[in-house]
Amino acid sequence: MKKNAFYAQSGGVTSVINASASAVIIESKKYPEIGKVYAGKNGILGALREELIDTSKETKRFIEDLKFRPGGAFGSCRYKLKGIDENLKEYQRLIEVFKAHNIGYFFYNGGNDSADTALKVSQISNKLNYPLQCIAIPKTVDNDLAITDCCPGFGSVAKYVVTSTIEAALDVESMSESSTKVFILEVMGRHTGWIAGSSILAKESHPGAPHIILLPEIKFNQQKFLKKVKETVVKNGFCVIVASEGIKNSKGKFIAESSMKDAFGHNQLGGVAPMLGDLINQKLKLKNHWAVADYLQRSATHISSDVDRKHAYEVGKKAVQYALKGMNGTMPIIKRTNNHPYRWKVVPASLTKIANVEKKLPSSFVSKDGFGLTNKAKVYFKPLIGGKISIPNKIIYQSGKMQMVPKKLKPWNESV
Amino acid sequence: MKKNAFYAQSGGVTSVINASASAVIIESKKYPEIGKVYAGKNGILGALREELIDTSKETKRFIEDLKFRPGGAFGSCRYKLKGIDENLKEYQRLIEVFKAHNIGYFFYNGGNDSADTALKVSQISNKLNYPLQCIAIPKTVDNDLAITDCCPGFGSVAKYVVTSTIEAALDVESMSESSTKVFILEVMGRHTGWIAGSSILAKESHPGAPHIILLPEIKFNQQKFLKKVKETVVKNGFCVIVASEGIKNSKGKFIAESSMKDAFGHNQLGGVAPMLGDLINQKLKLKNHWAVADYLQRSATHISSDVDRKHAYEVGKKAVQYALKGMNGTMPIIKRTNNHPYRWKVVPASLTKIANVEKKLPSSFVSKDGFGLTNKAKVYFKPLIGGKISIPNKIIYQSGKMQMVPKKLKPWNESV
Repeated sequence: MKKNAFYAQSGGVTSVINASASAVIIESKKYPEIGKVYAGKNGILGALREELIDTSKETKRFIEDLKFRPGGAFGSCRYKLKGIDENLKEYQRLIEVFKAHNIGYFFYNGGNDSADTALKVSQISNKLNYPLQCIAIPKTVDNDLAITDCCPGFGSVAKYVVTSTIEAALDVESMSESSTKVFILEVMGRHTGWIAGSSILAKESHPGAPHIILLPEIKFNQQKFLKKVKETVVKNGFCVIVASEGIKNSKGKFIAESSMKDAFGHNQLGGVAPMLGDLINQKLKLKNHWAVADYLQRSATHISSDVDRKHAYEVGKKAVQYALKGMNGTMPIIKRTNNHPYRWKVVPASLTKIANVEKKLPSSFVSKDGFGLTNKAKVYFKPLIGGKISIPNKIIYQSGKMQMVPKKLKPWNESV
Repeated sequence: MKKNAFYAQSGGVTSVINASASAVIIESKKYPEIGKVYAGKNGILGALREELIDTSKETKRFIEDLKFRPGGAFGSCRYKLKGIDENLKEYQRLIEVFKAHNIGYFFYNGGNDSADTALKVSQISNKLNYPLQCIAIPKTVDNDLAITDCCPGFGSVAKYVVTSTIEAALDVESMSESSTKVFILEVMGRHTGWIAGSSILAKESHPGAPHIILLPEIKFNQQKFLKKVKETVVKNGFCVIVASEGIKNSKGKFIAESSMKDAFGHNQLGGVAPMLGDLINQKLKLKNHWAVADYLQRSATHISSDVDRKHAYEVGKKAVQYALKGMNGTMPIIKRTNNHPYRWKVVPASLTKIANVEKKLPSSFVSKDGFGLTNKAKVYFKPLIGGKISIPNKIIYQSGKMQMVPKKLKPWNESV
């Protein structure tokens, strides 16, 4: 019997989440078992509110172009369904809406929260005897899902961060003699250092930067940090720092949730980078600049990774195929089969192993002093940004010879 | 008689400043009158310290590739020469170094400060009877130089800001139902709103964003601003703000130099975006995100404007030609001859009209309510970003039909 499909986007969007949407819609058209694909307006809220977008009314061009559209094309939401015992009614409502619209396939595009929801919906549909194939499609810039080698959305952020680190390093380096000595780039990643860590690839194009990477997996030690900054500036003349938004102090508290107060006594909402900048300013008296990329990094379609987009498309496609094979409570995940040349395939994994699990950066990826990453990490990250950094002519920014003309005069007394 | 040339980079670098350097070096090779091109290590400091980089020792490839290299390849500096009366010795030292190395051409690549320096050096060389052709080559992301239609460096930042605004707008829009309502992007520009203003071009790809542009030319009115934010969120569900770092309050004070204090009572160094975010949070209770692009915007070679790079190259080339024609105290500037299709040429202008003059955004560019820009402004900005926004497939992000499936159930009671 022909059944419709329901597709919803969940949580923070990525620059390739719509590639997965595109794949689900295009792949579904190939099978007579699937009727229409309805997209939830604003994610799962669309199902609860019975706000279903009929994707069959969109043009073919629109669906194709989704591959290159940042944001969540049908709207996403931050809405975590409660446990079944706490709020059975929400789950019943979902099943009720699915029933009313003859929906037999549920594709939920999100992170580990969404994997949990998809798993619960699959369980409740069993219990209520309503046949439903529940497939979670992986998506998160944080790259913190278990089992899968990587998460669609991550590779593009990594490429953005690597490119920005190289470019800003060349900028601060050229100004450091008389002006800014330290540049801090704050990146996303929540509790894990995958995004910050990926900036290590900048070293392949720039001999020095980033000099310091701050990871949430390593407790922030102010004294050790300041010492490293100072040493780096003394040695190189400048210092580039990539800091994860999720770094924590020795008490496990987020640095960004600090005791900064404004003139009215309000708590000033974080920003790790401005805090570190202020610290370096106060303690080391070093002029610094900082950037907080925020949404720019996860929506930067203009510099997204082709590999990442292919991952996102393929997991969407496989989600449909798995559903048709009768799989349930499943996630199509990415399995790496070779590093160089990069080869990968999509295989199914059980949501029970993925739901609510957060995958940290492995300790083998972190350098001894905690401020850098190992070669093993580089090997992991490299293919995900698409194999190359999209800077014109693929220039590797080596220095020129910079041969100095022999002096003919006595030194200039700058204090004159 | 064969004379050497001296080239120096000054002030904040851009993603195309090295295209001007490349042009000076390549063009100089064509003329037997010019010997070697020496680049100042770290700008004018290189001349004062007699630290001259012999560019003839670099490979042809290195000089060619400079066109695509962000930062200042030979080092730049923030070092403003004092007035001649205050510090004649500095100017004498420059002439002394030029004399010692047979330098007859001085190319100074910078903004209005550098134009002033080039002018003074030209005057002092006259006075000291040392023949020297002084040519200032325009460069500033701020786009605030007088006489010239635009400044090399600006078009690329504009392209970065426009692209980032579109991408982030699609991101926040898709999350706004249940999460972030307001996104703030802080951009450079110092005392002028050229960079912030250029974000108006985002509207050509995104129907709404940016909803509010904050310009230094318009005094920041907190009440009016908050009213506009609220209205925008009520009407559209979300609000995208592009704020210039240089916005000032009614007393003419920079907003970013505010009375923010940290837990130790230190003044917290600005960031307009976090301040506005905090304001919106406190007064309107609207969840917001903010980004501060800082150096990323001015070093983003990966998304630089071809037109901008051509401008930068051409002014470098013309600088050499002007010097050989015996011009002095001159700047090659860009003259727009047609908007659509965009046509331009480089012509000489006297430094006396450019030195220390700051060109503000004309009032005819600012919309009535002060939060937007006019069509006249769009016509001005459009060709400078290269005519197009480099997003794959040149997609214009229009919405889909988003046709809703008719409901079959009674409304869902979200409070259950």
